Amino acid sequence: MHLSELVRLALLEDVGAADVTTEATVPAGLGGAATIRAKQHLVVCGHEAAAEVFRQVGATYRPRAEEGVLVPPGTLVAEVEGPLRALLTGERLALNFLMRLCGIATHTRKAVSAAPGLKVVDTRKTTPLHRALERRAVRIGGGGNHRFALYDGVLIKDNHIAAAGGITAAFQRARAAAHHLLRIEIEVETLSQVEEALAAGADALLLDNMDDATLAAAVRLARAAPRPVLLEASGNMTAARLPVVAATGVDMVSMGGLIHQAPWADLSMKISAVQEHP
Amino acid sequence: MHLSELVRLALLEDVGAADVTTEATVPAGLGGAATIRAKQHLVVCGHEAAAEVFRQVGATYRPRAEEGVLVPPGTLVAEVEGPLRALLTGERLALNFLMRLCGIATHTRKAVSAAPGLKVVDTRKTTPLHRALERRAVRIGGGGNHRFALYDGVLIKDNHIAAAGGITAAFQRARAAAHHLLRIEIEVETLSQVEEALAAGADALLLDNMDDATLAAAVRLARAAPRPVLLEASGNMTAARLPVVAATGVDMVSMGGLIHQAPWADLSMKISAVQEHP
Amino acid sequence: MHLSELVRLALLEDVGAADVTTEATVPAGLGGAATIRAKQHLVVCGHEAAAEVFRQVGATYRPRAEEGVLVPPGTLVAEVEGPLRALLTGERLALNFLMRLCGIATHTRKAVSAAPGLKVVDTRKTTPLHRALERRAVRIGGGGNHRFALYDGVLIKDNHIAAAGGITAAFQRARAAAHHLLRIEIEVETLSQVEEALAAGADALLLDNMDDATLAAAVRLARAAPRPVLLEASGNMTAARLPVVAATGVDMVSMGGLIHQAPWADLSMKISAVQEHP
Amino acid sequence: MHLSELVRLALLEDVGAADVTTEATVPAGLGGAATIRAKQHLVVCGHEAAAEVFRQVGATYRPRAEEGVLVPPGTLVAEVEGPLRALLTGERLALNFLMRLCGIATHTRKAVSAAPGLKVVDTRKTTPLHRALERRAVRIGGGGNHRFALYDGVLIKDNHIAAAGGITAAFQRARAAAHHLLRIEIEVETLSQVEEALAAGADALLLDNMDDATLAAAVRLARAAPRPVLLEASGNMTAARLPVVAATGVDMVSMGGLIHQAPWADLSMKISAVQEHP
Amino acid sequence: MHLSELVRLALLEDVGAADVTTEATVPAGLGGAATIRAKQHLVVCGHEAAAEVFRQVGATYRPRAEEGVLVPPGTLVAEVEGPLRALLTGERLALNFLMRLCGIATHTRKAVSAAPGLKVVDTRKTTPLHRALERRAVRIGGGGNHRFALYDGVLIKDNHIAAAGGITAAFQRARAAAHHLLRIEIEVETLSQVEEALAAGADALLLDNMDDATLAAAVRLARAAPRPVLLEASGNMTAARLPVVAATGVDMVSMGGLIHQAPWADLSMKISAVQEHP
Amino acid sequence: MHLSELVRLALLEDVGAADVTTEATVPAGLGGAATIRAKQHLVVCGHEAAAEVFRQVGATYRPRAEEGVLVPPGTLVAEVEGPLRALLTGERLALNFLMRLCGIATHTRKAVSAAPGLKVVDTRKTTPLHRALERRAVRIGGGGNHRFALYDGVLIKDNHIAAAGGITAAFQRARAAAHHLLRIEIEVETLSQVEEALAAGADALLLDNMDDATLAAAVRLARAAPRPVLLEASGNMTAARLPVVAATGVDMVSMGGLIHQAPWADLSMKISAVQEHP
Repeated sequence: MHLSELVRLALLEDVGAADVTTEATVPAGLGGAATIRAKQHLVVCGHEAAAEVFRQVGATYRPRAEEGVLVPPGTLVAEVEGPLRALLTGERLALNFLMRLCGIATHTRKAVSAAPGLKVVDTRKTTPLHRALERRAVRIGGGGNHRFALYDGVLIKDNHIAAAGGITAAFQRARAAAHHLLRIEIEVETLSQVEEALAAGADALLLDNMDDATLAAAVRLARAAPRPVLLEASGNMTAARLPVVAATGVDMVSMGGLIHQAPWADLSMKISAVQEHP
Repeated sequence: MHLSELVRLALLEDVGAADVTTEATVPAGLGGAATIRAKQHLVVCGHEAAAEVFRQVGATYRPRAEEGVLVPPGTLVAEVEGPLRALLTGERLALNFLMRLCGIATHTRKAVSAAPGLKVVDTRKTTPLHRALERRAVRIGGGGNHRFALYDGVLIKDNHIAAAGGITAAFQRARAAAHHLLRIEIEVETLSQVEEALAAGADALLLDNMDDATLAAAVRLARAAPRPVLLEASGNMTAARLPVVAATGVDMVSMGGLIHQAPWADLSMKISAVQEHP
Repeated sequence: MHLSELVRLALLEDVGAADVTTEATVPAGLGGAATIRAKQHLVVCGHEAAAEVFRQVGATYRPRAEEGVLVPPGTLVAEVEGPLRALLTGERLALNFLMRLCGIATHTRKAVSAAPGLKVVDTRKTTPLHRALERRAVRIGGGGNHRFALYDGVLIKDNHIAAAGGITAAFQRARAAAHHLLRIEIEVETLSQVEEALAAGADALLLDNMDDATLAAAVRLARAAPRPVLLEASGNMTAARLPVVAATGVDMVSMGGLIHQAPWADLSMKISAVQEHP
Repeated sequence: MHLSELVRLALLEDVGAADVTTEATVPAGLGGAATIRAKQHLVVCGHEAAAEVFRQVGATYRPRAEEGVLVPPGTLVAEVEGPLRALLTGERLALNFLMRLCGIATHTRKAVSAAPGLKVVDTRKTTPLHRALERRAVRIGGGGNHRFALYDGVLIKDNHIAAAGGITAAFQRARAAAHHLLRIEIEVETLSQVEEALAAGADALLLDNMDDATLAAAVRLARAAPRPVLLEASGNMTAARLPVVAATGVDMVSMGGLIHQAPWADLSMKISAVQEHP
Repeated sequence: MHLSELVRLALLEDVGAADVTTEATVPAGLGGAATIRAKQHLVVCGHEAAAEVFRQVGATYRPRAEEGVLVPPGTLVAEVEGPLRALLTGERLALNFLMRLCGIATHTRKAVSAAPGLKVVDTRKTTPLHRALERRAVRIGGGGNHRFALYDGVLIKDNHIAAAGGITAAFQRARAAAHHLLRIEIEVETLSQVEEALAAGADALLLDNMDDATLAAAVRLARAAPRPVLLEASGNMTAARLPVVAATGVDMVSMGGLIHQAPWADLSMKISAVQEHP
Repeated sequence: MHLSELVRLALLEDVGAADVTTEATVPAGLGGAATIRAKQHLVVCGHEAAAEVFRQVGATYRPRAEEGVLVPPGTLVAEVEGPLRALLTGERLALNFLMRLCGIATHTRKAVSAAPGLKVVDTRKTTPLHRALERRAVRIGGGGNHRFALYDGVLIKDNHIAAAGGITAAFQRARAAAHHLLRIEIEVETLSQVEEALAAGADALLLDNMDDATLAAAVRLARAAPRPVLLEASGNMTAARLPVVAATGVDMVSMGGLIHQAPWADLSMKISAVQEHP
């Protein structure tokens, strides 16, 4: 779903037939300006969604802080200008986008800061219909992205392996069916699975729920294999554990919590000027 | 947006043209069963959304734990049955709904438990397109709901007051424009605003960002007024503060954080049986 | 449904694949102007819908008579300018909107003129998908609006009462379920129902199908109650009866016939100029 | 727009997020039955739309009076059965369809009864998005239908003639552009136009706004032409005038008023039984 | 479906979440220009669709060769200008439209050139959702169009005849049901069917799958009938046979192969300039 | 777009408001059966689309020949059963799908038969909105598929290279931006480009428009590289040339013409039985 459609449906949800308070209390002829400010330390993110909200209600949003920058409380994040009714009607939805996305970017920044140099990526644990926005917030926060969806990557998990009758069979089926520009990644939980997946010819391994020692052993096995293989660690990852995981030599760590454990950041909007609208 | 449409669009987001892994590795003829279990203490919520996901991919979801109940880790929350491909393709999206909604219900339960008897309601700080689901999760968790949207309630905020030229003018405009089945609530931050709003004839007051003492004073003012008025406290509310707020005698507290500070709860799905599908 | 979507679908209905007559007979390069005039006494209404029709086909509509004014036959209501093909293709649909909406505004004007000072409102007896336009036509005609829909007002009718097990039970359930910004109105047909509804705590009463004497008695009962209650009379209302009803002291009368008994008003469009289109 | 889509959007308009009254007052487990009866003399019409409304809310509608039959007040028109909530939520919309369509069928019946044997058809003056339903109501009432829309018939009007540079030029352009299964009708207002249109080769003439004598003369001219031509009279048609018009020998009369002057007919729904729903 | 919607959905199909190659390799700030050239002899067609593709991705398409002209390889057909990313993302879809439509126009040109003066029209054998574009390509190529769809023409085929109980019965039912601006065409395969259809009063005959001699005999029968009838020949038509068919005196020939046997024509797009985008 | 939506829109295109011929001539109460047969040698393909067409109009489609099998003229491909009106209304659209898809499968079968053992895949030169169906027809015909769209594969073409400032830069940007499950393919036209792409680390090379000798040389270069690379040949490919290309040792050949040079195959539907419909 394009952002414009997401915003259109979200305005329908929040405004519907009419913003009865604003239509009643604010004369149609008034224009105004407003400022949006951070109320806590946060990494700025979400200008495009907020701008689209105000565009659809007929106002103009101007970013005043760069995305990706960690700013202190009180920072001017954006200014908005247009009919006063439009400012008030769009306020809540625009803030709902900004607060969520700043929240994810800020939460991601904290995680990746724990292990500089380690690639930390998201997962498919995202809010339905918000995946593109949330993935972008992860990048803005300093993380990376895994495949977007089920259609643009092959990741063979335990249930696929069981259904196909083993790692080798699953890999061969996947290789035959997927087009040649897709790599095949296999989820493994034990060292013997690591060996089987390497022998089958996997392009990448998802090392799932391993403790640090097993992880290290898996990396050694993989690096000794004749052809290069990408190594991704996942499961029970916390910012605190990342330095140890990084030291094992994996290529990347995936953490759903970059998104699903992120609280919203706090921002607010204030009307800064009211004037007759031309 | 109806739930079926939300789920349809969400499947489009996560599956799109095809679940290439599953189509490649899992034979079309296999059926299966799966269990969904809690991996932490959580308040169960979200059966309807999860069931709709599996319905749309062609499988059947059966709730095995009652919504609203706080269950320990390991609890069987639901069982799913159908074509094995359908189980695997729908798994992530169904869990994304369940984890979010159990998370909100669990977080709400904690908050409301801090002040039994106090009515705690949500706000319009909800995830775009998920408001109906999130509000329901708040109710399941033991909270209540504020107005749904801008179209079904009149809440006059500071900017409306400024635009209308004062509390009295804003109230009178709103009363004249709104149909007779809508009450008028006015947001106030000081005791003099409380007095003005009471004099104007407000049906309800939103006591915003007041400290405990001011809150108590506002309640005394309002209770001394000739006609009854509903009192809602909001701003800087935490579970810890709720008992004190309850003691002031307000009718309810609204907390956006019931939803936007709720981390996802942890659940997982395991395939429990594979068989030839009839 | 937004007006732009309503008009888009309506053009699809009336034009579809092509306006074969116009495309065949009118050269693409011609521009033109047209006038829309009243062919009877009517209250002007519907500029926004007509303008949207012409906008979507690529022409410009300019109102020339103010909405809400009662004008005589021959009055210039609007002018249209643009490609001649666009004028001809949009003509019928624009007139269909104008004729319907002027018809409702004119019919409402007649009704409300019968009892100056009495508030007369519409009901949910509206043409499917045209409710917002029809309600606005009632306001333009001098009437008022009841709740918009089932989602923004609580009106307990006889069947709800029966299902809940009585007026008091129905009221208590509704009060508990509805958010605090919604009032509760109860439909009553007898004086004993009036008494029960007042005792239950209803915010408003719909006095349905009462004769003048009963209506007057109901008003006396309600005005003697300890707390204020809104009184709406409905059922068998005609313009002729309104003065008597007004005299009973009800707060408002609702009449579905403002909309559903309104014949279309007569307007027509004439091409006033044809020129080469730049 | 298919009927199911029209009803879906109309339910969205009238119910939206929720029927708050019904959800609050009526227990989810109750089932019920209801009767829909005529409250005036009317020609029955609209079963399909009413049935679709109840189908979409989860109830079952059973016609009990045949469409096209003129029935007296009190007649049972339909019965409905299903969850009690569904009956109450769907009631208003289903009645809105029935009252409109019975109204048009009844109004048409009166008009066509004035001149038995005369073909009386509708026009494109229909309610946006309701054309298919309204045209069907005209047929049920005993009338006939003109072309559905701009895409399935060629009707050259005064403005087309002016743009093309005369009747002959307009006809020739239309004949060249339209596919061979479409006839060409030309609107004429004077006898000299009749002669020119006949000479050009028109398949049908719309005799517009002629008085009775001119109409009769036009018919004589046309019947004397070498090739057969269809004759349609229109403009200022009333039921009272139809017998005279019929006597001129025209093939048909078109009257927009069959639809746009039709008041809604009166019907009501009553709950006839309440029971525990299986 | 309007062209803009067709293109919107087609971009969703080909681009979806992102053009990952272009976003990765082409800086956002670059602008560019491109040329689209014919790589074979072809009749130019499809500017509107190609222009819409580039408009939706944010670039500008300028036709440089006139539609309907047969051009040699190397001819500049169009130029495109805009953000370099937009040019690359829109390239394939725009070419897919152009290659298809030039292909149909070119194929049609060849067919109609075989029998100058003979009207050759398309059929309903068109690519689903592309009918309007394909019919236009036939016209651009020099052919004509049959009815657009099932809704704007009456063509009684063998199965309709069988269901109605004969040609006469089928014709009479169709005449009674269809509005007066639609002609009735009947498909016939033998001379006795020709006679029955003429006697029934058919406006047009589709002479299906007749050999040349039968076709000639059918034309003689029809031309001897008292009222004029249109004659369309169809079935087993090839360009080579058209001169003979034309000589029989039929009014037109219909050939589905104008569209469904047309290979795509070859065109390609080259970037002609890259510059910093303002 | 899901198949059901494609078919829904296509029925809207072909049937629209009504199939006027069928509704007029075929009584609503009749049922029937029909057979669909090949009229030429063809590879059967398209059952799912045809079945969906008949499902949406209310009939049942039963495949009678297996997809992928080359059948002779006269072969029974499918049977259809249901209301006679539904059979006639759905006939053309169902055949339009079948004729197109059998055409592509048959055309592909011919191409791949020219070089058994060589993998021949399609390209993005597909009919807008029909890509999924056309790709499947290629598979049914014996071919393979390239990436689905711009979102699920990285293919760096000449214009990307130019914009990025060379093959190496383009590769590095793409590798950094694409998620780790996507391979990077680079289009090359000369041997020096082959060398540069191999040095950059490309996972696959698209050898474009090379003559046989250059192709062979490119393969030798690539096979001598230290890490494995996939080789795809494209441009000016014909069935006749395929054996020579296969002999060079490339991994696959891509041919847009599998789809865009495929004429429709010929099939027809006949009503085989008519009966009263229950």
